Amino acid sequence: MQITFLGTSSGVPTRSRNVSSVAIRLPQRAEVWLFDCGEGTQHQLLRSDVKISQIRRIFITHLHGDHIFGLMGLLASYGLAGNPTAIDIYGPPGLSEYIRASERYSYTHLSYPLKVHTVQPGLVYEDEEFLVSCVPLKHRVTAFGYRIVEKDRPGRFNVEQAAALGIPNGPLYGKLKRGEEVTLSDGRQIRGSDLCAPPEIGRKVVYCTDTVYCDAAVELSQDADVLIHEATFSHQDADMAFDRLHSTSTMAAQVALGAGVKQLIMTHFSPRYAPGNALVLDDLLQEARAIFPNTALAYDFLIHEVPRRRGE
Amino acid sequence: MQITFLGTSSGVPTRSRNVSSVAIRLPQRAEVWLFDCGEGTQHQLLRSDVKISQIRRIFITHLHGDHIFGLMGLLASYGLAGNPTAIDIYGPPGLSEYIRASERYSYTHLSYPLKVHTVQPGLVYEDEEFLVSCVPLKHRVTAFGYRIVEKDRPGRFNVEQAAALGIPNGPLYGKLKRGEEVTLSDGRQIRGSDLCAPPEIGRKVVYCTDTVYCDAAVELSQDADVLIHEATFSHQDADMAFDRLHSTSTMAAQVALGAGVKQLIMTHFSPRYAPGNALVLDDLLQEARAIFPNTALAYDFLIHEVPRRRGE
Ligand SMILES: [Zn+2]
Ligand SMILES: [Zn+2]
Repeated sequence: MQITFLGTSSGVPTRSRNVSSVAIRLPQRAEVWLFDCGEGTQHQLLRSDVKISQIRRIFITHLHGDHIFGLMGLLASYGLAGNPTAIDIYGPPGLSEYIRASERYSYTHLSYPLKVHTVQPGLVYEDEEFLVSCVPLKHRVTAFGYRIVEKDRPGRFNVEQAAALGIPNGPLYGKLKRGEEVTLSDGRQIRGSDLCAPPEIGRKVVYCTDTVYCDAAVELSQDADVLIHEATFSHQDADMAFDRLHSTSTMAAQVALGAGVKQLIMTHFSPRYAPGNALVLDDLLQEARAIFPNTALAYDFLIHEVPRRRGE
Repeated sequence: MQITFLGTSSGVPTRSRNVSSVAIRLPQRAEVWLFDCGEGTQHQLLRSDVKISQIRRIFITHLHGDHIFGLMGLLASYGLAGNPTAIDIYGPPGLSEYIRASERYSYTHLSYPLKVHTVQPGLVYEDEEFLVSCVPLKHRVTAFGYRIVEKDRPGRFNVEQAAALGIPNGPLYGKLKRGEEVTLSDGRQIRGSDLCAPPEIGRKVVYCTDTVYCDAAVELSQDADVLIHEATFSHQDADMAFDRLHSTSTMAAQVALGAGVKQLIMTHFSPRYAPGNALVLDDLLQEARAIFPNTALAYDFLIHEVPRRRGE
């Protein structure tokens, strides 16, 4: 899994940071999932290694403009990018109506199937390899945090070793692959787990924006490999964070700490911390690291590889 | 008057050309008028010398996404750019509904008065210095071309000369300034035009997009100083132009020739003519120049000063 930050500013774009969007490339398939789609996301894609034609699903946290105003342009361009297959979009109530109204007024006729799913807290999407769930966050409007979970996979079955043990190819292999114990015709007992590599533990990535500190974010983030959490404000501007229901850097770190994640990457920064101001993003980073050391600052086009976990 | 091209690609943005928008700076006031507002227009403004805070009016030609998907983001950012006054938007039927629906779904609360005017063919806007009119073009959806006319101004009245002639300061001055003839108490006849510099002829800029060749465009463009006309296709791809109701380079040139404009600037180019293709924009330029020599190609961030005209 490879995370590409396409926009890391809150509210308005700046010269160096666009408004919110994060792309996650799935390793097992040539597929990209997008999280939020602020204005100019398709422009950022043009400047990145992520191909618009590989986007298959888009998850929207909430309907504030800096998270959705790039959606219509991206959907239109996706249809012109060659061999569009289909796009599924997931988001809060109102998203479907917004898209349908925009399509209607702008005479946008998409050449591929577009499905808009209104999410509910809980399971949002599942296939053989992944599942995505969401929880409501605490923002001025309905907002959801998303958890992307790669399912655990059994370790590779050692066919050579099985053959050397004289186990006949056939239905027994299936049982052993699933880790079960089997009894051979000569009475030998073989444990499947002895013939399998340690299972591959699925990776977990959590995307939490926009929100003030909330317990739901901690629950959603349990044991995540990577927590992407908004940090609009510095701890010193906590009053603004509470007022506008956004997070400070320290709130993001507290979520990371409480959830026992492996790494925190902060994003969605107020332009007020651009270089040259009294407080800058490095201050937010230090504030967060004092609570949760393994913290990083996102920037546009940052690529973060989430390493595979082997059985632990 | 200073024209800044903010986006010169048709349909989709490319790495070097954004979708449609043109800013016109008015010389007499610190005011900018925008024509069309494709996605990413506010980003282009950040990279240009045009200040978002100076935008006062926005004219929309038609509701295709590549001409309006930057509107909501721009309106939201304008409100945050410091001292927003008011914005008036002009465009075809449906524009107001599109904006109101987008505001509603995205919870956008603008902090300044926004007025949306549905235009009719004819006069669109008038003040002491300018008037803007529009005509329907020939596109797949309702589309308008706009003509911006700076009103003629009387030449400067030579007060020193009037005093030297012994004309008493007072109501006679007003008549002379208007170019009228007056009779002094001593019987002398004085012609106002002799005391005034030649009148300043107002400049005319026409913005024609999207459209296939049409007589209405020629009428709208009569005697313009600058005609900005779309040229989505090469003459060699005229079948596509007729099919999609867009212009070729030669159609743009024919409008310029028929209207007797001073200069043609072509824009809204299909990405198919990007460098490296069989046909490139220089081919479109040559095609147009064969018909109308004073033709130029727009590119993003091109600034074109429209010179003042003195009495001719
Ligand atoms: Zn928000
Ligand atoms: Zn169009």
